[in-house]
Amino acid sequence: MTLRLYDLAAAEPERRFSPYCWRSRLALAHKGLEVETIPWRFTEKAVIAPSGQGLVPVLVDGERWLSDSWTIANYLEDAYPDRPSLFGGAAARSLSRYYSTFADGLVAAIFPFIALDIFDRIAAQDRDYFRTSREKRVGMTLEAFVADRTAKLPAFRAGLTPLRRVLTTQPYLGGDAPLYADYAMFGPFQWARCISPFALLEEDDPVRLWRDRLLDRFDGLARRSPAYDA
Amino acid sequence: MTLRLYDLAAAEPERRFSPYCWRSRLALAHKGLEVETIPWRFTEKAVIAPSGQGLVPVLVDGERWLSDSWTIANYLEDAYPDRPSLFGGAAARSLSRYYSTFADGLVAAIFPFIALDIFDRIAAQDRDYFRTSREKRVGMTLEAFVADRTAKLPAFRAGLTPLRRVLTTQPYLGGDAPLYADYAMFGPFQWARCISPFALLEEDDPVRLWRDRLLDRFDGLARRSPAYDA
Repeated sequence: MTLRLYDLAAAEPERRFSPYCWRSRLALAHKGLEVETIPWRFTEKAVIAPSGQGLVPVLVDGERWLSDSWTIANYLEDAYPDRPSLFGGAAARSLSRYYSTFADGLVAAIFPFIALDIFDRIAAQDRDYFRTSREKRVGMTLEAFVADRTAKLPAFRAGLTPLRRVLTTQPYLGGDAPLYADYAMFGPFQWARCISPFALLEEDDPVRLWRDRLLDRFDGLARRSPAYDA
Repeated sequence: MTLRLYDLAAAEPERRFSPYCWRSRLALAHKGLEVETIPWRFTEKAVIAPSGQGLVPVLVDGERWLSDSWTIANYLEDAYPDRPSLFGGAAARSLSRYYSTFADGLVAAIFPFIALDIFDRIAAQDRDYFRTSREKRVGMTLEAFVADRTAKLPAFRAGLTPLRRVLTTQPYLGGDAPLYADYAMFGPFQWARCISPFALLEEDDPVRLWRDRLLDRFDGLARRSPAYDA
């Protein structure tokens, strides 16, 4: 039975941009599992109500409804143990948790660059919800929030120094091949790439080259999705 | 043949405070290897010249001289494979690299709080070297550098959010027991604790509780060393 993944979509249903959904999509691909991705909008809370909450990714596997990208990754690893390991062993699973949590902070760090681009590209039905909830969170209008984004760029890029250093010594965080830690950290960059033309990373940045290697995995799964730097 | 580790010491030879040496000491303890630690001062470059550079930790194992905490950790894992694994497997070793690199940034983040406390406690022979090299690096006097440290504390503590979140869900970064990723991240906190009375972490901070669990490992190896919050 094919798995189903509720996957955040912009106005165009094929433009999928959630940083958390991308983690799950790459985790599913790593496990070699077929999945039907269903375009979902922020305001379609009722559709995913069986998951017990209102955010995507939501994965449906038979009778099971799962939410939260970390929970989904652990479920896939445990439910499909004969497939390639997503974490790389017990110790690596524990060590992957920090990557996932750190990458959640990366989402917050990237948001000041792309907040208005998201608003401009999401479905009409989502706009009031998005503007109201995000402006409350950041304490100002989306326009004011992104106004000085170019000035913020050097500090953002400097904050990637540890990631950059590691990726100059090994091709992936997981070593010679990617693991869930890579997908967890990739999600925020793919989010930005899919929804905003703003150039977060310089073309020769080792972080960007790593991102590009991940775009090519699984027959270009992440590269084939609509984005702004193709 | 007992291993030897050149270990940075303050004015009192028993006050060992290098964040990088502490990584190596816990790595050696994790492997169950006996080591003779030799107090070393910043200016004793000639003593460690056989390592081909001028910084500690320097580990001497028979005829081999090794430097750099990451190199030493990898050497111990490979040279003593029958001892408990320091990384937790091949994938976990790759994933540990980011922790080590990120923790190097933590050293830089902690330095503005303890720079003058280090100066006050190091050996007389090291003071000119330390003041001159560090003031050149930070672009001001040590006194000016630490003057507003209390104001910087909230931002420093906020930056530990991902680490704090992970440590509320599992006792160690490595899971139920510590691995090299833990020792790599512990080093900077033990550095501060050994050389400065400044309270970097609140008493109930999960990061501090994790630090305290690591102080108790290996019969309290890190707790028994002279420090300021005993």
